[in-house]
Amino acid sequence: MKTKAAIFGASGYTGQELIRILSAHPQVELVAVTSRRYAGMKVSDVFPSLSGLTFLSYTNASPREIAKLCDVVFLALPHGVSMEIAPVFIEAGKKVIDLSADYRLRDLATYEQWYAKHTSAGLFGQAVYGLPELYRETVKTSPLIANPGCYPTSIILGLAPALKNKLLEVSTIIADSASGVSGAGRDPVVGSLFCEVDGGFKAYKVGKHRHTPEIEQELHQLAGEKFVISFTPHLLPVKRGILSTMYATLKKNVTEEELRGLYASFYAGEKFVRICPAGAYPNISSVCGSNFCDIGLTVDPRTGRVIMISAIDNLIKGAAGQAVQNMNLVCGFPEDSGLGTPPLYP
Amino acid sequence: MKTKAAIFGASGYTGQELIRILSAHPQVELVAVTSRRYAGMKVSDVFPSLSGLTFLSYTNASPREIAKLCDVVFLALPHGVSMEIAPVFIEAGKKVIDLSADYRLRDLATYEQWYAKHTSAGLFGQAVYGLPELYRETVKTSPLIANPGCYPTSIILGLAPALKNKLLEVSTIIADSASGVSGAGRDPVVGSLFCEVDGGFKAYKVGKHRHTPEIEQELHQLAGEKFVISFTPHLLPVKRGILSTMYATLKKNVTEEELRGLYASFYAGEKFVRICPAGAYPNISSVCGSNFCDIGLTVDPRTGRVIMISAIDNLIKGAAGQAVQNMNLVCGFPEDSGLGTPPLYP
Amino acid sequence: MKTKAAIFGASGYTGQELIRILSAHPQVELVAVTSRRYAGMKVSDVFPSLSGLTFLSYTNASPREIAKLCDVVFLALPHGVSMEIAPVFIEAGKKVIDLSADYRLRDLATYEQWYAKHTSAGLFGQAVYGLPELYRETVKTSPLIANPGCYPTSIILGLAPALKNKLLEVSTIIADSASGVSGAGRDPVVGSLFCEVDGGFKAYKVGKHRHTPEIEQELHQLAGEKFVISFTPHLLPVKRGILSTMYATLKKNVTEEELRGLYASFYAGEKFVRICPAGAYPNISSVCGSNFCDIGLTVDPRTGRVIMISAIDNLIKGAAGQAVQNMNLVCGFPEDSGLGTPPLYP
Amino acid sequence: MKTKAAIFGASGYTGQELIRILSAHPQVELVAVTSRRYAGMKVSDVFPSLSGLTFLSYTNASPREIAKLCDVVFLALPHGVSMEIAPVFIEAGKKVIDLSADYRLRDLATYEQWYAKHTSAGLFGQAVYGLPELYRETVKTSPLIANPGCYPTSIILGLAPALKNKLLEVSTIIADSASGVSGAGRDPVVGSLFCEVDGGFKAYKVGKHRHTPEIEQELHQLAGEKFVISFTPHLLPVKRGILSTMYATLKKNVTEEELRGLYASFYAGEKFVRICPAGAYPNISSVCGSNFCDIGLTVDPRTGRVIMISAIDNLIKGAAGQAVQNMNLVCGFPEDSGLGTPPLYP
Repeated sequence: MKTKAAIFGASGYTGQELIRILSAHPQVELVAVTSRRYAGMKVSDVFPSLSGLTFLSYTNASPREIAKLCDVVFLALPHGVSMEIAPVFIEAGKKVIDLSADYRLRDLATYEQWYAKHTSAGLFGQAVYGLPELYRETVKTSPLIANPGCYPTSIILGLAPALKNKLLEVSTIIADSASGVSGAGRDPVVGSLFCEVDGGFKAYKVGKHRHTPEIEQELHQLAGEKFVISFTPHLLPVKRGILSTMYATLKKNVTEEELRGLYASFYAGEKFVRICPAGAYPNISSVCGSNFCDIGLTVDPRTGRVIMISAIDNLIKGAAGQAVQNMNLVCGFPEDSGLGTPPLYP
Repeated sequence: MKTKAAIFGASGYTGQELIRILSAHPQVELVAVTSRRYAGMKVSDVFPSLSGLTFLSYTNASPREIAKLCDVVFLALPHGVSMEIAPVFIEAGKKVIDLSADYRLRDLATYEQWYAKHTSAGLFGQAVYGLPELYRETVKTSPLIANPGCYPTSIILGLAPALKNKLLEVSTIIADSASGVSGAGRDPVVGSLFCEVDGGFKAYKVGKHRHTPEIEQELHQLAGEKFVISFTPHLLPVKRGILSTMYATLKKNVTEEELRGLYASFYAGEKFVRICPAGAYPNISSVCGSNFCDIGLTVDPRTGRVIMISAIDNLIKGAAGQAVQNMNLVCGFPEDSGLGTPPLYP
Repeated sequence: MKTKAAIFGASGYTGQELIRILSAHPQVELVAVTSRRYAGMKVSDVFPSLSGLTFLSYTNASPREIAKLCDVVFLALPHGVSMEIAPVFIEAGKKVIDLSADYRLRDLATYEQWYAKHTSAGLFGQAVYGLPELYRETVKTSPLIANPGCYPTSIILGLAPALKNKLLEVSTIIADSASGVSGAGRDPVVGSLFCEVDGGFKAYKVGKHRHTPEIEQELHQLAGEKFVISFTPHLLPVKRGILSTMYATLKKNVTEEELRGLYASFYAGEKFVRICPAGAYPNISSVCGSNFCDIGLTVDPRTGRVIMISAIDNLIKGAAGQAVQNMNLVCGFPEDSGLGTPPLYP
Repeated sequence: MKTKAAIFGASGYTGQELIRILSAHPQVELVAVTSRRYAGMKVSDVFPSLSGLTFLSYTNASPREIAKLCDVVFLALPHGVSMEIAPVFIEAGKKVIDLSADYRLRDLATYEQWYAKHTSAGLFGQAVYGLPELYRETVKTSPLIANPGCYPTSIILGLAPALKNKLLEVSTIIADSASGVSGAGRDPVVGSLFCEVDGGFKAYKVGKHRHTPEIEQELHQLAGEKFVISFTPHLLPVKRGILSTMYATLKKNVTEEELRGLYASFYAGEKFVRICPAGAYPNISSVCGSNFCDIGLTVDPRTGRVIMISAIDNLIKGAAGQAVQNMNLVCGFPEDSGLGTPPLYP
């Protein structure tokens, strides 16, 4: 018998992506999807791409009602809303995979400084940061999985082996990232209009993006010390994808070949991390449509810096795909179940 | 034991797409891919998106050598080249799925008028036009399957039910189509450069495109009579997708609802054809990444015309996906095996 | 002394385009731009591209107040709003160039059937349809110029010489058009989001678009008889540009060369119409950024049809540029004043 | 009487852009454009966007012949070719504006290390680095102007005021840049195909791009000391535009407001440099189609870094527009003559 899954808040791009992936997942039956805006409408009328693949309609049922129907729930809700909903499912003994930021930070003060007042921080102790490549074993037994942000996923995976090996002057770390527009969600705002984005490129929230404390929290964990980084997000005229270019001064002499070896061994056995061969760099069009994270490396002896570049599909490895990967772990399925689709290139 | 497949000419976008689909096909093992240009190179170095998904390298082996390795072969070659290669595989008793135009036309003179001198027209009798929705049973037993062109697939599927039901004044049929750039292949030509295509839209080969006789041949078959159509291809600034907007004057009074009913029943049970609900029209972004053909219908009482609109992914239902659908039929696999990936939206 | 111009409703793409063109117009001083939403804000804060080019701020002044400041006013308002505002300026003796649909139709019943109740149809008699290539002399003396729609401009210019020369079976005319997203305006709606449009292509309002009666009105005028046409708009993933592909059966035998000659002589002396040489077709990227309309022609002896293709920048020749062309005429400036910018290619 | 200009090597995007700008320049007559590939063809047949704007045909005339026809020549040639052609024009007493890299570096060894053997380095003494905002007076009297590279223009202008004011720890400077595809030229290569670029984003030539020594040369000049920087170029899926995001640790305590003030006063009176207001950042779509360079600034007290972001149109301020700005200076025309076109937004 299939495991029953529900999606709370399934009207945006991340919600759609979860439906898309789960509709083809061999061990899961998607039993309910909620949306206030679309309640009563067929999913395939809102997203015609899903016609013939799902026969569900949106419901406006309460968390308590949904909890009765499912074994595992995905919360694809804005931060501040998840914290109101998650406790209901936890109390009902369901597995919760939360795609908001509400349970990602382990320090309440930091959360409240960057986001807002937290109403269920008592759950922090039960939550695990759902980056399987770093926290696989803990994810398997946690009732509440805080699915990482899209930028953090790309940056943390790109830096982890170098930090773990104490190669970097941590005070010099800079992450320069660029994201596709789907990262801004499906709400109709002027800044996400085709005519505002196409043919353009710009930075935004320079030095102020809310993913900063999440990134730093995990980098500290890896390095075993505290520090601050510069993180600059940019808006790319593409639908999907994040590319992060990271800079740091090397603390030890290491050749590019040695570094590539360290990365390869750190990620040995990982199905969703690919290290680019020498001279090649990641391209978001080589990962889009898949759960892959591609990583490229350059050691520049001229400047003494290492440049680490990582690429993901922000809706998959940066959101819905990683959430399904976490569900696979917590439900005891093969970790890549439902996630085998190759990137859609070109 | 898996069926062994090979791809002859696998360096272009269609070849890549075949590798991508076959690398995840449950009943097939891809054993060889050929390319003169890339011989000796790893597929994943040419197409980094396929890294980790295939470990093959390109070979420059002869048809005779490849025939020894495989049970079924895909020819992803330019027209004029397939006709030299296909006979070798046919003689060796292999199943051949030819993606060129070489065996699509049943009339030699028409072929030679629009294309070039044919050197193996003797095989015409063994070839079947591989549009499963029209020729399913014949495909199952044919050694040589002529995989349809991308424009023809969209136009024939969009018109078939109306023609079969004798609803149209056939002399008034106009097909106005638009294709993504991958249809032009991966050869580096100025007209396919990003800067030439992005932000643009234009018609090309007006009244002269070589798909015209192929389209007409199949429309004649459906209508049971001969006629000429206008076909105008346009180049869209997208990577994948074809949308065809077809016009014809109605011969009989039929409501839009009746027409939709006729289409629904004509395509009943077809897994890859979806009829849009009233008031909705196909969008190539709702089919891209999948083997679907979406069809929308409007009866316009003001003008007495019916407008039929169809959308496909030119590389999948218009090429590699349809080829795999044909392979599934000829090999006795489930028809949708390896073709279940939902469209990648957004 | 410069002529004083104002723009009523200058917060959308058409309003911005008028500001852009007028800020560099040698005979005009732009004295006021209105917007309810942006009242009090600097234009250059709303549109940073205009920084350094205009120092105006948006105002929420009434039509009566604006009328005191200017000699000529552009109304870049939705239909239904213009009809409330235009009479104020007409009564104040100002020249009015209305970019809405409110005064384009000469038949009240047709307007009310396709749009809404009209409150100032009494002005119909003073209004001229502002397509200078057809109505130049009348435009020069009219106080109220109804600036044509974007689709109609492309279609009427593309068909005019053929209709005027009675070459077409008028009952067979089909106009298949595709427009860039700026045609949908700057209002934040889901359908105009980058992620909904990029990589996509679809028809919309098939057989029902409100530009249909405007197109037919002008085609009737040219042909000297009444008839209906099929008009199908599509949404292109580009910011600017309209391409219209028009089909009609030829009534007379005419070669492509003769037809091209008729077009060339019909448009002789026109600065903004360019006829493509034999074998070449218009591309919207060859007109974008300019006031040009490019026209390409094919006579297809196989089908007896002529295919006429026209391309414009929907925001320039299809809106703001044509409005300035009309202003130049009505104010006695050189017709191309302020409109000399070459297309921005690539 | 107008000054006579010629373009040597006018078949690429930069050449086309020069033709486009010069065809509307009030003080200049374009008398000859050369191309080996297109010799004998009309410019408007190669670039239909220029139809009606220029009536020139390409010629394959020798430098000596062209020198007889013109007062000033633009060399839009690959590096290594310019150095063979420029001396002919210099000897003939013509003003030369070279858009290649051949005369940008003042140190022969550095040129030969990053590029190739130099055959006319004797001209180094007569050449000036044509960045008018830094070298205006020298440009006016120099016979040989080395027009800056596109990346260098954006980076040098973005850093100049901070360096001149000794605000930066120069060893920490990182320039992370992204360029539109036109920067790669019009040669048909796989990497510039629409299907390879659209929807993608990648870094290239990490730590190895040839613009590095040119950037460093000018930064040293501004800072009065030597140092190395990290420069990482990325390929953007847009036709035009470069955005550079630059990072450096602050040496002195300076507020963002003070910094913005320093930039404003450094660029006071400059027509083509615009400083963004607080909280706003440059977007390439706000400069494309114009000769502007927009600069945005953030001081991040959390990290002690300053982030400086600049945007240009790579074909205009990064190539042809800056070349015309230099021609204006060396010919005594108003510096902005022919360069007044506002950005084409949206």
